Amino acid sequence: MQLGMIGLGRMGANMVRRLTRGGHQCVVYDTHPDAVAALVKEGAVGSSSLDEFVHKLSAPRAVWLMVPAAVVDRTLADLVPRLAPGDIVIDGGNSYYVDDLRRAKQLAAKGLHYVDVGTSGGVFGLDRGYCQMIGGEPAVVQHLDPIFATLAPPFESAPRTAGRSGPPSTAERGYLHCGPNGSGHFVKMVHNGIEYGLMAAYAEGLNILQHANIGRRDHAVDAETTPLRDPAHYQYDLNVGDIAEVWRRGSVVASWLLDLTAQALGKDPGLESYAGRVSDSGEGRWTVLAAVDEGVPVPVLSAALFERFSSRGEDDFANRMLSAMRHAFGGHVEKPAGH
Amino acid sequence: MQLGMIGLGRMGANMVRRLTRGGHQCVVYDTHPDAVAALVKEGAVGSSSLDEFVHKLSAPRAVWLMVPAAVVDRTLADLVPRLAPGDIVIDGGNSYYVDDLRRAKQLAAKGLHYVDVGTSGGVFGLDRGYCQMIGGEPAVVQHLDPIFATLAPPFESAPRTAGRSGPPSTAERGYLHCGPNGSGHFVKMVHNGIEYGLMAAYAEGLNILQHANIGRRDHAVDAETTPLRDPAHYQYDLNVGDIAEVWRRGSVVASWLLDLTAQALGKDPGLESYAGRVSDSGEGRWTVLAAVDEGVPVPVLSAALFERFSSRGEDDFANRMLSAMRHAFGGHVEKPAGH
Amino acid sequence: MQLGMIGLGRMGANMVRRLTRGGHQCVVYDTHPDAVAALVKEGAVGSSSLDEFVHKLSAPRAVWLMVPAAVVDRTLADLVPRLAPGDIVIDGGNSYYVDDLRRAKQLAAKGLHYVDVGTSGGVFGLDRGYCQMIGGEPAVVQHLDPIFATLAPPFESAPRTAGRSGPPSTAERGYLHCGPNGSGHFVKMVHNGIEYGLMAAYAEGLNILQHANIGRRDHAVDAETTPLRDPAHYQYDLNVGDIAEVWRRGSVVASWLLDLTAQALGKDPGLESYAGRVSDSGEGRWTVLAAVDEGVPVPVLSAALFERFSSRGEDDFANRMLSAMRHAFGGHVEKPAGH
Amino acid sequence: MQLGMIGLGRMGANMVRRLTRGGHQCVVYDTHPDAVAALVKEGAVGSSSLDEFVHKLSAPRAVWLMVPAAVVDRTLADLVPRLAPGDIVIDGGNSYYVDDLRRAKQLAAKGLHYVDVGTSGGVFGLDRGYCQMIGGEPAVVQHLDPIFATLAPPFESAPRTAGRSGPPSTAERGYLHCGPNGSGHFVKMVHNGIEYGLMAAYAEGLNILQHANIGRRDHAVDAETTPLRDPAHYQYDLNVGDIAEVWRRGSVVASWLLDLTAQALGKDPGLESYAGRVSDSGEGRWTVLAAVDEGVPVPVLSAALFERFSSRGEDDFANRMLSAMRHAFGGHVEKPAGH
Repeated sequence: MQLGMIGLGRMGANMVRRLTRGGHQCVVYDTHPDAVAALVKEGAVGSSSLDEFVHKLSAPRAVWLMVPAAVVDRTLADLVPRLAPGDIVIDGGNSYYVDDLRRAKQLAAKGLHYVDVGTSGGVFGLDRGYCQMIGGEPAVVQHLDPIFATLAPPFESAPRTAGRSGPPSTAERGYLHCGPNGSGHFVKMVHNGIEYGLMAAYAEGLNILQHANIGRRDHAVDAETTPLRDPAHYQYDLNVGDIAEVWRRGSVVASWLLDLTAQALGKDPGLESYAGRVSDSGEGRWTVLAAVDEGVPVPVLSAALFERFSSRGEDDFANRMLSAMRHAFGGHVEKPAGH
Repeated sequence: MQLGMIGLGRMGANMVRRLTRGGHQCVVYDTHPDAVAALVKEGAVGSSSLDEFVHKLSAPRAVWLMVPAAVVDRTLADLVPRLAPGDIVIDGGNSYYVDDLRRAKQLAAKGLHYVDVGTSGGVFGLDRGYCQMIGGEPAVVQHLDPIFATLAPPFESAPRTAGRSGPPSTAERGYLHCGPNGSGHFVKMVHNGIEYGLMAAYAEGLNILQHANIGRRDHAVDAETTPLRDPAHYQYDLNVGDIAEVWRRGSVVASWLLDLTAQALGKDPGLESYAGRVSDSGEGRWTVLAAVDEGVPVPVLSAALFERFSSRGEDDFANRMLSAMRHAFGGHVEKPAGH
Repeated sequence: MQLGMIGLGRMGANMVRRLTRGGHQCVVYDTHPDAVAALVKEGAVGSSSLDEFVHKLSAPRAVWLMVPAAVVDRTLADLVPRLAPGDIVIDGGNSYYVDDLRRAKQLAAKGLHYVDVGTSGGVFGLDRGYCQMIGGEPAVVQHLDPIFATLAPPFESAPRTAGRSGPPSTAERGYLHCGPNGSGHFVKMVHNGIEYGLMAAYAEGLNILQHANIGRRDHAVDAETTPLRDPAHYQYDLNVGDIAEVWRRGSVVASWLLDLTAQALGKDPGLESYAGRVSDSGEGRWTVLAAVDEGVPVPVLSAALFERFSSRGEDDFANRMLSAMRHAFGGHVEKPAGH
Repeated sequence: MQLGMIGLGRMGANMVRRLTRGGHQCVVYDTHPDAVAALVKEGAVGSSSLDEFVHKLSAPRAVWLMVPAAVVDRTLADLVPRLAPGDIVIDGGNSYYVDDLRRAKQLAAKGLHYVDVGTSGGVFGLDRGYCQMIGGEPAVVQHLDPIFATLAPPFESAPRTAGRSGPPSTAERGYLHCGPNGSGHFVKMVHNGIEYGLMAAYAEGLNILQHANIGRRDHAVDAETTPLRDPAHYQYDLNVGDIAEVWRRGSVVASWLLDLTAQALGKDPGLESYAGRVSDSGEGRWTVLAAVDEGVPVPVLSAALFERFSSRGEDDFANRMLSAMRHAFGGHVEKPAGH
């Protein structure tokens, strides 16, 4: 079927490629003409303005936005007046689901349909397919099924779950209509919250392995340093990259994130090319906010989020506060770095 | 080659089966004669006493212990006097690596070799193979290579990591000589610590999804209950099992644990067959102890451990303490359950 | 000076008493006439309707609301139309500071002034005085200074901080103009967030003391229970109440919360009168939300909040999920309670 | 009575002063003769060797060690051969209680008594008195009562707990016989674990206040930065020092640690004299180890400990691991510091 795509960055462009290869017609638009031209060469229908973009689409139009969350409202402000009742707008980016609720209501007032799609897959989606979590009206989601089916990974990409039988459900083919508007991004938000937790679990564990030779190092002997009681217990020089690799086969902690971890450690065993300032892009925060609203305890997911904040130095004032207190009650003086 | 196996429970018996199928000769012993008899039918060489077991093995003997961690020392006390210098004892169970250090020293004093092997794979190991993390002397580990290679999963069970080439290393074939004695169980300990963190990340995230309809429930309006500011934001009845399933293909959080989660939710969507009292079996605790000794922060792994303690009611006195304080300073009275 | 008080519950009534004793005239109103009558006996000016209440106040009126956060908007809807430009409304309850921002703007549009006051002191405030954190316009806050000064604890209630000299600032007399509207409740919100953390620190520590005799108990010996390596290390039957008491003098952890803890343990050493279902009333949640918005890590404050959620069973589904996973990969069966 | 004191550092010297002022005779020894000379001027009995020290004490001797935990065993090795059956050795430092169990047994074999005393009070103890947590044999602890009573803070230093009556117990006079050997240091260990939690609660909360103006700052607009949804909610320039001060009177979070915090912020509002590298000196770690052994959840106390580890950069490898994973699956590139 025909789909319009606005936003031809890393994600949007690859989705157009996957759809074009799958036999769909993609009309594409981006504020950078080069991005449009590149995809035209690969079979997409280009457009140099929003007007042209909209006119090249047949009614009812289906327009997929793949733009940064901060730009969605601005894009909608430009796009919506050009659309006609019955047209469909899909937000496939990383919007906050609370914004979906508002946008869906605004579009409905104009006779337009809104679909929110959380997509996972990253830079590998072009080849592996995109896992899609979808929120919207049933008939509209059904109408778009050919698009979702093509974007999704194949059923064969994972062994069938024991107990499932019959024709594969869409969940088994990598996309799921989760519920009404907002639910797609809600589920994607929690997906990313979990992702933070998984990543932190690996990172903390590998950090323990990396320090398993601490018994060999000389330690300061002073009142400000806790002595290691049993240096003989920490004499291991472990190859963390090989350990990540061996866990990929047969272990309980095997996962796609572990595959990537093994690869990263293979390339750069000491991870010297990174500084350790870890960004967070919204979903992890929103996941914690949702948990707090729901009254659901998330000590692991929140700890993972807070580690990222700390990695960027946001704990600095708090830490200086602790040193100030220690100095006040015990006369303790801070030790300089490296001691 | 020939291997003696002591301990024919779930894990030990399946390892014998996998080795026998792989062409090795297994001499087996267990305090339950039935367990021995069952494996003899499948091609193992049985023994009805430790003496018989030892006599059926050719020097240098290789004896694999697959017994509960609490029984290893007792088993060694019976076994070691029957062995001869040059013989090898392998502890393939879930021993604390600190015990390995002691045992290796004790055995070395008698001319015996000790190898510690952390094995992961659970009830699926017979078919999938066992991921093995190995600690011991290089020559001894090399001598046992045929055993490890057969127990391990095949190279083909995971796609090769980008950047690796040439003949597959043992890490790529599911087993790794990590370092000297204790390192095998050290790495396995951290593996399990990570496992706790991964499991908690999924469980917390799915719990948020499960409560996404909290805006529909009636809420108490009183000073002891935080009102939900935006009930409209929490109106989703999500199918958590389908969500776990859809994440299996193409998403960033795909993993073997997620496969099992999807399966469990498929069978019992409300998880009614579980009470939620979660055991912990040692490695998660030892992981936190190691991190504390090393001075490595593990907020996620420790939070995952403490959630298990709390699930068993070990936070009870602390919680009553909190209620007592709230009553003392604010006159707050506890709300009964279900309100 | 004259002050109108709406809301004569535990907090409001005691504030009226403290103000009356301090020489101020309080005009009081409550939807329960009994509450009004009781305070009239103690010197307050009663009113049986909002109209009467407003008419008994001289312009510019100063009206203090001491009602549940959930009722503030409704109360304002009734009150505001009866006020005149220049009048002042003070919200002394536990409102979310974000609501203050909205209300201040709405009132300003009508020429009214809004002041938000976070008050701490609980049931002891009548005698000890109320710590007040104030947000609002400087001139308006200054105008109300006699009220704040009387409600506040005396300067003498704490030894002067080293380095401070000259006439005591209001911060040293128990009240502080923190900044513009919302800042009073913002600071109070964080105060309560800290309170959660402090309470949890005591509760967790005392729980460790309470379990210091765990080495004496019989333990299950099975694969689902981690054995205690050194039972000899946990043979202490400690008197937790006496320990809380001894820490009150000379120790680093002395605090008012500890005073209350010692008292609660003195009355009920086993805390048998509590079930351990710990409520949370909003500020702890909002503190975490603010930290997440600011990108400030709060692992301790959030852990304290989540312990409360868990104490009420909100971790139940997550825990059953963990048991389901353990069963799936390891065949582990849950142990019943008490084993 | 007479007491021998070995170790005349900050703590030991002040204890001698407090005892001397209280009418006790202190025989003192230190490896630094200057430290001895200084106290002789203040009324202590000096000694220039361990032999002289022991000979100046009357049997049964009571010798208090106030030396770093790492030096206790060495000091005992020198001291014990010089003592006679019936003599008493008191370890008043920060020893691990597990070491007490071993030492008490070793000394008992020689007819010597061992008493472990956890002391809190820091640099303020000379004037305020020392809170003492005591482990040992009842008769021996009773024998030393005059010493403990003099070192302890006066009963009057805190208002009596409601519900307590009759002659004040020792708990109400600042010292407590907690139980058999090790229990004094066990209780002190948990005291310090709680101290970590309390300190972290204040530090995290004050950090939120310090960042309450984040809505005023320019923020990067890119895919790696979470935009602040409501900058208008974070426009407060708060005086954190005044807030700490105001909380000292009448609030629920008042404490001695808060007193010190207010003082530190008064002197150095931006805490510029600290770098934020926070040491930990053992007890916080041991508290977490004990909790893990007991199966008691301590998410707050452990989070507080791990924040200290992170403040010293021990999370570095883990953070780089997270950046490496983000780069691998999403092509995310780290943002440099300050952006």
